[in-house]
Order: sequence, then C-alpha cells, then structure tokens
Amino acid sequence: MKRFGQVIQLQSGVLESYKQYHAVIWPEVAAKITECNIRNYSIYHKDGYLFAYFEYHGANFAGDMAKMAEDPRTLEWWAIMKPMQAPLDTRLPGEWWADMEECFHQD
Amino acid sequence: MKRFGQVIQLQSGVLESYKQYHAVIWPEVAAKITECNIRNYSIYHKDGYLFAYFEYHGANFAGDMAKMAEDPRTLEWWAIMKPMQAPLDTRLPGEWWADMEECFHQD
Repeated sequence: MKRFGQVIQLQSGVLESYKQYHAVIWPEVAAKITECNIRNYSIYHKDGYLFAYFEYHGANFAGDMAKMAEDPRTLEWWAIMKPMQAPLDTRLPGEWWADMEECFHQD
Repeated sequence: MKRFGQVIQLQSGVLESYKQYHAVIWPEVAAKITECNIRNYSIYHKDGYLFAYFEYHGANFAGDMAKMAEDPRTLEWWAIMKPMQAPLDTRLPGEWWADMEECFHQD
C-alpha cells in the first residue's frame, strides 16, 4: 500500500458548490475510484486550500490512473471540478493536484 | 474513529531540519502518540505547507490531547518543533495546527 498526500487550491467563491458535489458524489465516479484501488480517501479544506489523502492498494498506480482518466463519467465529473480548482504553479509537469512529500508516518 | 486533517506552515529554511527530526522521532514521543489513541498519522509537505492526517481511535480526544500536552518529553519535542512552524493567522483560538474541514471521504 502506498499513501498519497496532494494539494490544490480552489477558485474563490466555489467552496460551497465543491462541497455540495462531493456530499453526493456520482455513484459511477465513486465506484471507479474503488475499482482503481484507491481506499481511505479524504479531502480537507482550509483557506482555499484542498488537501487530499488516500491509500493506493493496487500494483500499477499509473495504469489505474490512466484507466480512471478514460472513464467517461469520471471525465464528466472532472469537467465540472477542474474549473473550480486552481492548481499550484509549483506542481510538477503532468500533475493537476500537486503531490506532497511525506515527512512523517506512524501507524 | 474520527479522522483529522490539519495544516500549518513552516518557517523558511527549516524543512530539512524538520524532516530530519521526524525521520528519527524520539521513541517516547512516538509512544505517547500511540498511548493517546492516534493511529495512521502522516505529515506531508509542499511549498512550506505541512498537512497532517491522522485517525483518532479513543473516546476522549480533548482528554488525550491534554495528556499529551503534560508529557515532559513531548513538551521538549514541541519546544524544538514550534519555532520551526508558522501557524496560520486564520487558525481558531486554542489551535496551533489549524483543523481543516472534511469535504469528502470514501472508504
């Protein structure tokens, strides 16, 4: 299992809408997340920053992410979410949410 | 079980030192975290922001946090960590790390 921490910002004024969508995530999008071996997935907000934490239980993260990115319903979902998000200028090439560096872990 | 997401900033120039300390956390500090019912505790860094995720498995969070705050070795540890940290101006009264709002969770 590999843990991920990721960060992105929200455009101003969209927090309530973003939360509303995530309170009733589309079942097909939720199912695809599970199918792609993501577990224990949380998103937190403070001051316009979103932090995501999740655990990847598969054996091919790039492959699973590619599979997710081919799912029509997931693409529809992202087409609504992405305009609400403001990715960090410091994200790496190919990133949308920026991966964070793990500084500490204790089970 | 209750999940927490928290955020704080680092003072500039201290990241390597902060990571070094957390790579070899004092055993008594680690043990006190466990004794206080914290599990699956991760800290991530990006651009001077630290994001903490942990799961609380006890029945009295305030009581356990008070117990942690009375532990001499933990207080020694915090006396080194706190000057490296820059708490958010928007944190609530009584907070050091600022609690974040959960916007989404999927097991």
